[in-house]
Order: sequence, then structure tokens, then C-alpha cells
Amino acid sequence: MFSKFFPRDFNFFKLFEKQISYAVDAARFFREVVSQGCVNEDALSKMSAIEHQADDVAHTIIEQLNKTFITPIDREDIHALTMEIDDIVDMINTIVNRMRIYNITGVDKNLVEFAKVIEESVQAVARAVGGLRDIKNVKVVYDACVEVNRLENVGDSMRDKVLMELFATVKDPIAVIKWKDIYVDAETVLDVCEDVAHVVDSIMVKQA
Amino acid sequence: MFSKFFPRDFNFFKLFEKQISYAVDAARFFREVVSQGCVNEDALSKMSAIEHQADDVAHTIIEQLNKTFITPIDREDIHALTMEIDDIVDMINTIVNRMRIYNITGVDKNLVEFAKVIEESVQAVARAVGGLRDIKNVKVVYDACVEVNRLENVGDSMRDKVLMELFATVKDPIAVIKWKDIYVDAETVLDVCEDVAHVVDSIMVKQA
Amino acid sequence: MFSKFFPRDFNFFKLFEKQISYAVDAARFFREVVSQGCVNEDALSKMSAIEHQADDVAHTIIEQLNKTFITPIDREDIHALTMEIDDIVDMINTIVNRMRIYNITGVDKNLVEFAKVIEESVQAVARAVGGLRDIKNVKVVYDACVEVNRLENVGDSMRDKVLMELFATVKDPIAVIKWKDIYVDAETVLDVCEDVAHVVDSIMVKQA
Repeated sequence: MFSKFFPRDFNFFKLFEKQISYAVDAARFFREVVSQGCVNEDALSKMSAIEHQADDVAHTIIEQLNKTFITPIDREDIHALTMEIDDIVDMINTIVNRMRIYNITGVDKNLVEFAKVIEESVQAVARAVGGLRDIKNVKVVYDACVEVNRLENVGDSMRDKVLMELFATVKDPIAVIKWKDIYVDAETVLDVCEDVAHVVDSIMVKQA
Repeated sequence: MFSKFFPRDFNFFKLFEKQISYAVDAARFFREVVSQGCVNEDALSKMSAIEHQADDVAHTIIEQLNKTFITPIDREDIHALTMEIDDIVDMINTIVNRMRIYNITGVDKNLVEFAKVIEESVQAVARAVGGLRDIKNVKVVYDACVEVNRLENVGDSMRDKVLMELFATVKDPIAVIKWKDIYVDAETVLDVCEDVAHVVDSIMVKQA
Repeated sequence: MFSKFFPRDFNFFKLFEKQISYAVDAARFFREVVSQGCVNEDALSKMSAIEHQADDVAHTIIEQLNKTFITPIDREDIHALTMEIDDIVDMINTIVNRMRIYNITGVDKNLVEFAKVIEESVQAVARAVGGLRDIKNVKVVYDACVEVNRLENVGDSMRDKVLMELFATVKDPIAVIKWKDIYVDAETVLDVCEDVAHVVDSIMVKQA
């Protein structure tokens, strides 16, 4: 629908789809890493490679935005969407990096659980972003956004539960410091996914 | 004054007053909770109920904003004001939730002191927001904003003082982690109140 | 170039240069303080004085922005630039204050290293901001922004390295809490410098 009116701008949608696909890669890789319970140099450089690819797409979008006079969706929404998707990848990268800094080894079942919810949420965000191309997808986009919100609530409860458990059972203060940071970061990924869903939702509302 | 020109939009002011009234409720309830020194299930669900009511008003404001062509005050200011007031309630809710997660029991005189300053600040914010309806209230709004700024400075000093005391006297590292978070959160409520006051002030300046 | 068209607005540039000069003062003073390894009352009040001077310029800029109809650069860019420069000074002030609250004494070689990188970065930001006056400075501004980005990457690696060392070697949990906060804050100054560079860069792009 938008593409009829602004045929040459269709590539914003293509770029967003590319960018969110790297976020999906990051989330999948994160789940793999925490399931193996070890962040080695190889894992770090793979994660870093995904982050750089995502970064490149974000830069392309911003550059193109600065050069484009008429955009298929509001300029500030394009800007916000790119920045927020970038934040998803950054946040996942932050956790992997933190696991190395804290020398986390061994599989933590709570973190595996978080990684699964994160992967589901990023996939739902990808469906929402993918639906932006066409106003006919309004139902798909809406459902995906509702799912992202639901998973953010799931994450909130998980974080509260695991932190309660952490403070109630772990006696080593340095372990408390480490895991508190990691669980809070994990939940933050879901917050950022929700932020992306809000931007997508408001773009759809304006076009409806 | 605004209402003369945009009579049908007067309900934005009504909605802001409703929203800030829930922030006042949250602040009052927070003071009660910390004065009793115990966060039980009942307290949590009461706090959560206030937060949901505040959320509903925020959603109504954003929906109405999306549907309204001419707004009595700048669109971005309406958006910012709603979001910032929402942040007050969220932040208070975060502290109550944290007290449960950290299993805080017993009355802490520093936190009681913070809760009093928070309640005063939110009440001043409510006077500022309530004055937005009419440019004639410029003095009331201005005085309320000055008071919010003053209380933010009071909160800054309190936080520094209590953290200094905490690090100088408490030897249990896990207690240090818990109380550091709670005191920092408490001061953050006052920061958010100041943010609301800034938005209100800038709205008044533009209309003057 | 801008000043030809908007001669009366030239003082925005003058004000930005004034504001960033206080950030340079703050960074220099911070390096001096950490090189001496002691935050006494005298150091605190000097730091606080710099912060107030910087604040005053920020207020003047915002006031002038509210009164000016045609601005030499986009209103939102002027606003963003002032706020971000203010954040540099605030963040440096936060660290000095934290050092007092945590009763940090003695010279920490890592923090001295951070302080040097921070001073270099703020000086590069000052070159970028100083170049904004004239589109002919595009190369100077661009080079300065590249340098700020480079130093942010240097800071990221430093923070990761020193945190890894901290968690691997320090056994006192309260010392871990303190130094973790301080190193993270130090790196945050470099993040904020990068944010300023982004704003400056985007202003240049728009005018090119």
C-alpha cells in the first residue's frame, strides 16, 4: 500500500527486515551460548560479528533517511525503529560480554529459560516489523505486538522470581552481584522488544 | 484561556489531573508501606492496582492524542507529560516490588524520610499539573515547580548522606547491595518528579 | 556560513563553545583529582562550581532557544546538543561525588588511565563543537567526531579489562561494588561524549 505511493522508498522496509533478522540471529545465538554454558573467544567473536552486521544496516538506514525527502513512514518513526532494533542486538551482546567479564561457566537453568523467552519475543518483533510493509497486515502486526507485550510480562515475573531466589539462597555476595546483573540485563532485552513493538504499533495506528 | 479556544479539548487537562492523582495515591501508599516496614501480598496488590489505574489513564491520553487534530498544548508536550507522570508511578511501584524481592522487613528511618519527601514532591507536581488549565495559574505552577526542584536537591543530599553512612557502617555486603538499590530508586522518584516539573514549566513558558 | 544568513544568532555558537569549555575544565579537574587520589571538601566544591557554571550556560541556551524564532541550526538539535554537553559535566561530577561517598582514597592506576582518555575525548568534542560555526570546518569536525568514537571504543575495552581484573582478583565484595560503579561511570562519560559527537555530526550532515 505505501509502496504504491512511494515506490522508490520500499527499501526502508527491506532494510528493517534485514536489521531485525540480525536481532533474530543474535537471540538464537544467545540461546545456544547459554545452553552450552560457556562464553569462549569463539562465541564472543561470533556475537560481535552479528552486532557489526546489525550496526551496518542501522547506519545505512540513517544515511538513507538523511538523503530521502519523502519517507513512507514518519521520519522520527524510522529513526526510532532503527535505534530500538539496534538496542535489542546491543543488549544481547552486552549480556554475552558480561558473562565473559564475570567468568560465568556452567549452565544456569534460569538463564536458559530467559534465553528462550527472549528468542520468542525477538521472533514476534520480527513478525511485527515484517508486517509493516502493508496495511493489510494490520492483524498480523497487532497479534505480534500483543505477543511481545505478553512475553515482557512473563519476563518481569521471571526476573522477580529468580532474583528473590538469588537473594534468599545464594550466600556469596560476588555471585549475587554477577547474577543480579545478568538477570536484570536479560529482562531488559524483553523491555527493548516491547519498545520496538510500541513503535511498530504506533506506525500502524497512524496509517490505519 | 486555552479552553476558550479549544473547548472540546479541555478533557486533556482533566485526564492529566486524573493521572497525577494516581501518582499522589501511589506516593501516599508508599509512605504508609515504609512506615509499617512490611511489604506483604496485600500491599503489593494494592500498589499494583494503583499502577494499573494510572496506566489506563495514560493509554486513554495517548489514544485521544492520536485521534485529536488540534491539541490545546503541543502534541509532544502532551506525550512527554503523560509518559513522565507514568514514570513516577512505575518508579514507586518498582521500589515496593524491590522491597518484596529483597525481603525487606522492619522500619528504616531513612526510607521513611525519603517517602515523606517523595509524597511532598508528588503533591507539588499535582499542583503544577492542576494549574496547567489556565495561564492565570502561572504563579501557582511556577511556585510548585520551584518546590519540586527544591525537593529534588533535598533528595540528592539525603541519598548521598545515607549511602555514605551505609558504606561506612554496614559490613554485610548483601545488605549494602539491597539498601543501595532502594535508596537510589527512592531518589530517582524525585528526579522523575523534576522531569515532570520541567515539562509543565516549558508548557507554561510557551503559552505565556 | 550560517552566520551570514542569521547574523544575530551567532551567539548560539558562542554559548556552545562556552558550555563545552566547562566540560573541558571538568575533565581536566577530574584527571587532577584522580591523579592525587583524594576527594576532599575543597575538590568537591571546585567540581561543583564548574558544574554550576556549565548549568548556567545550558539554561541561557534553552531560554534563548525559547525566545528565538529562526535558529541557525534545527531547534531540536540545539536542545539535544545542550542537554548532551550538560550530561558530560554531570557524569564527571557524579563520579567525583561517588568517590567521596565511597570514601575512595589512594591513586588507582586504572582510574588515572580512564581520566586521561576522558580528557582527550572531551577535548575532541570541544574541537567538534567549536567547528560548528562554519561549514568550512567540516573536515575538522569530522576528524574530531571520529576521534571521539575511537576513544569510546578504547574506553569500552578498558572497562571490560579492568572489570575482568576486578572480579578475578578482588575478594572484598564491598570493594567490588564500589569500583565496579566507578569504572562503569568512567566509561559512561565516553559514551556521552560519543552522543555529543553524533549530534554534532548530524548537524553538519544536514547543512552540507
